[in-house]
Amino acid sequence: MPGYVRDDLPEEEVERQRDLYGPFTQSIRELVDAGLRTLVADEEVLAVQAEVEALTARLRAKQLEGAYGVRFSAEGRGRPWGNTVVGLRNAVAPPLTIEHHPDRDGRVWSDFHLGAVYEGPPGLVHGGVSALVLDQLLGESAGAGGKPGMTATLTLTYKRGTPLGALRGEAWIERAESYKTWARGHLIGPEGVTVEAEGLFVLPRWAREALAKQDPEKAPPRYFE
Amino acid sequence: MPGYVRDDLPEEEVERQRDLYGPFTQSIRELVDAGLRTLVADEEVLAVQAEVEALTARLRAKQLEGAYGVRFSAEGRGRPWGNTVVGLRNAVAPPLTIEHHPDRDGRVWSDFHLGAVYEGPPGLVHGGVSALVLDQLLGESAGAGGKPGMTATLTLTYKRGTPLGALRGEAWIERAESYKTWARGHLIGPEGVTVEAEGLFVLPRWAREALAKQDPEKAPPRYFE
Repeated sequence: MPGYVRDDLPEEEVERQRDLYGPFTQSIRELVDAGLRTLVADEEVLAVQAEVEALTARLRAKQLEGAYGVRFSAEGRGRPWGNTVVGLRNAVAPPLTIEHHPDRDGRVWSDFHLGAVYEGPPGLVHGGVSALVLDQLLGESAGAGGKPGMTATLTLTYKRGTPLGALRGEAWIERAESYKTWARGHLIGPEGVTVEAEGLFVLPRWAREALAKQDPEKAPPRYFE
Repeated sequence: MPGYVRDDLPEEEVERQRDLYGPFTQSIRELVDAGLRTLVADEEVLAVQAEVEALTARLRAKQLEGAYGVRFSAEGRGRPWGNTVVGLRNAVAPPLTIEHHPDRDGRVWSDFHLGAVYEGPPGLVHGGVSALVLDQLLGESAGAGGKPGMTATLTLTYKRGTPLGALRGEAWIERAESYKTWARGHLIGPEGVTVEAEGLFVLPRWAREALAKQDPEKAPPRYFE
């Protein structure tokens, strides 16, 4: 399972980290937004920049060598905390909290807010950000249906502009066959559906081989975060 | 031209702002990366969080009410500085610098680097981030060909995983007709093409009407940033 780290963290340690890094990362998200929208004087911008650089140096005193990856605790619960869409520790991520329908395999949804940093055309969500969010939703849908996979194809149809602000995303499984899942979904703004998506998600060969060997140490993740 | 602000900034003021906000925003990008990868002690994380919150308050002392939008100077050069892909002032943006081929209308490319905050599967670029970057490249290609438009459809085909790190993106026009442009493009990693894209870009009605009336005040932007 390349790049998926099983660190056997006990659940209470996972919760402790969640409580620590969640608000910490949110504070950085606020700084990113403020940095884009600030109108303070040049001297103040430069003074804040010097302080930001000092804070970065403090955080880098001890750090991961590369990217975060996906870590699994003893219970097998994945932590995709670096993920660009759902990452608890990633200030680039809005982040989305994705809900799973308890009775219908593969039905997922999320209510979320996209602010100024996700802008494309003025006042509207960047078309590529809609694609980014929908890729994650459809991928989680495929995984929730029991057949996780990496994106093979993704097609977006833009019905109207998606306004920045409060949005809803939904995804579900259209059909599944062997190691392939076809999923669909859409974004909904104040005036209805703005973007529709359909995608094919395919379980990679290494994961298929691990499943065939019934090797629990190399079982594929719930979805390919 | 809804949301496109013409502020008539002289070119030297644009350059001055570029020199100020470019490095400032880059310092925030570094903080975002350090925040994701840090392993310093909890007390230090909390201390940095308090300082980040204080810096945000200083920046918010005076700020834009909403999103940045796209601003045009007297010469008509657009500044999509809040854009999620190319925004000079947006720490969520890598940002990409997109080059235009001087002799071939619509041919654009970009060499760029995607770090830890753009991760999906471990060590790989999030499939949706590839879509985000390609949407921008294809859109700029359509605009560079003289027929800018908003994304109507976008189809991504994933050939293999895209590793985090140094990447190249390219886009070109397949064909154009009236107010529609079909563009294609791809991302290239160390082992070749990783993702292919094709999209249809359509000039919105308000822009078509402005063009028909030959109203220079409402001319559409070079592309729909």
